[in-house]
Amino acid sequence: MMHIYGDLNSGNCLKVKYTADALGLSYQWVPVDIMKGEAKTPAFLAMNDMAQVPVVELGDGRFLAQSNAILRYLARGTNLLPEDAYRAAKVDELLFWEQYSHEPYIAVCRFQMVYLGKPASALDPDKVKRGNDALDFMEQRLTKQACAQERFFVSDDLTIADIALLAYTRLAGQGGFDLSQRKALTGWIRRCEETLRLESLPAE
Amino acid sequence: MMHIYGDLNSGNCLKVKYTADALGLSYQWVPVDIMKGEAKTPAFLAMNDMAQVPVVELGDGRFLAQSNAILRYLARGTNLLPEDAYRAAKVDELLFWEQYSHEPYIAVCRFQMVYLGKPASALDPDKVKRGNDALDFMEQRLTKQACAQERFFVSDDLTIADIALLAYTRLAGQGGFDLSQRKALTGWIRRCEETLRLESLPAE
Repeated sequence: MMHIYGDLNSGNCLKVKYTADALGLSYQWVPVDIMKGEAKTPAFLAMNDMAQVPVVELGDGRFLAQSNAILRYLARGTNLLPEDAYRAAKVDELLFWEQYSHEPYIAVCRFQMVYLGKPASALDPDKVKRGNDALDFMEQRLTKQACAQERFFVSDDLTIADIALLAYTRLAGQGGFDLSQRKALTGWIRRCEETLRLESLPAE
Repeated sequence: MMHIYGDLNSGNCLKVKYTADALGLSYQWVPVDIMKGEAKTPAFLAMNDMAQVPVVELGDGRFLAQSNAILRYLARGTNLLPEDAYRAAKVDELLFWEQYSHEPYIAVCRFQMVYLGKPASALDPDKVKRGNDALDFMEQRLTKQACAQERFFVSDDLTIADIALLAYTRLAGQGGFDLSQRKALTGWIRRCEETLRLESLPAE
């Protein structure tokens, strides 16, 4: 059986859970407390020398790290990753964008508030601006998708690009971001939650 | 014919050039000067609403952005991307690590020195530390690979993981980083340059 080593408060870990659950995969969740340094122990580093969660043991002793690499591996050959090479590449485009232009701002602001207890007023204004830029980009892209009669980011069906973007976007309020005026985005979150059978989060 | 829109001073763009050249693909290079705002014009945004180089027009009017997504698309079915799903996932692991834990430090320090003219002493110490952490990780991983008789990051053959990491690593000296004491890393750079038939850069 697959083992997922992660922290249920981390969006990067939740992505893997959402994907495994959507695919009906069996797994055992192994909690790792990064705040206690549990991702830096010799035993953990032997699994993942990048010293980050999530990491997955595939059930055969082989390990895989990096949330979006795990999503891509688990989703291959399923309806969460288009078979067509170009459409799969458009999924990849968003997976890389998420890690470079979204997570470092949305997730990091949330980390500082939720894990470190900072008030929103103490956040780095540059990170807040870039986080809002990322949310604006998503709002615009989803508005275009809606014009093309597509309900999700790459097509009319949910893919791992949606799952990767959903994980921290639905938690953005915990990082001081206001989603309420972004109607395309909040509609998309609701559609993702329905498709993945996630309970809606209480409004911040 | 494929068109690559990019800046030959950008490692993210050079990755795409190295890959296209290694595969013997025909393309036309279209220079984009990001410092003059050429990645934010309406014409550019119609190609890539992420407002970043590189972007590739595939020769049929379809566009693809995000350097590592482009590499993965161009390399599919070639010897630059392993056919085995797990080994391909280990390539992905490094592609995502590069964009999250390497490029934001190594490339950004170089950008500040080369594009903005800052001296090394004016760089953000946290970015310098994280850049050195990334180079240390590469040194350790390559040392392990050498013990396993493998000359490159994922196997004994060069893959797009090597190309993605090479682009900014070989330019790290321009960002104030010292590679000279990292022997596994400098050996790997030389092997990549030989395999890709790149001229060695002068020592910084």
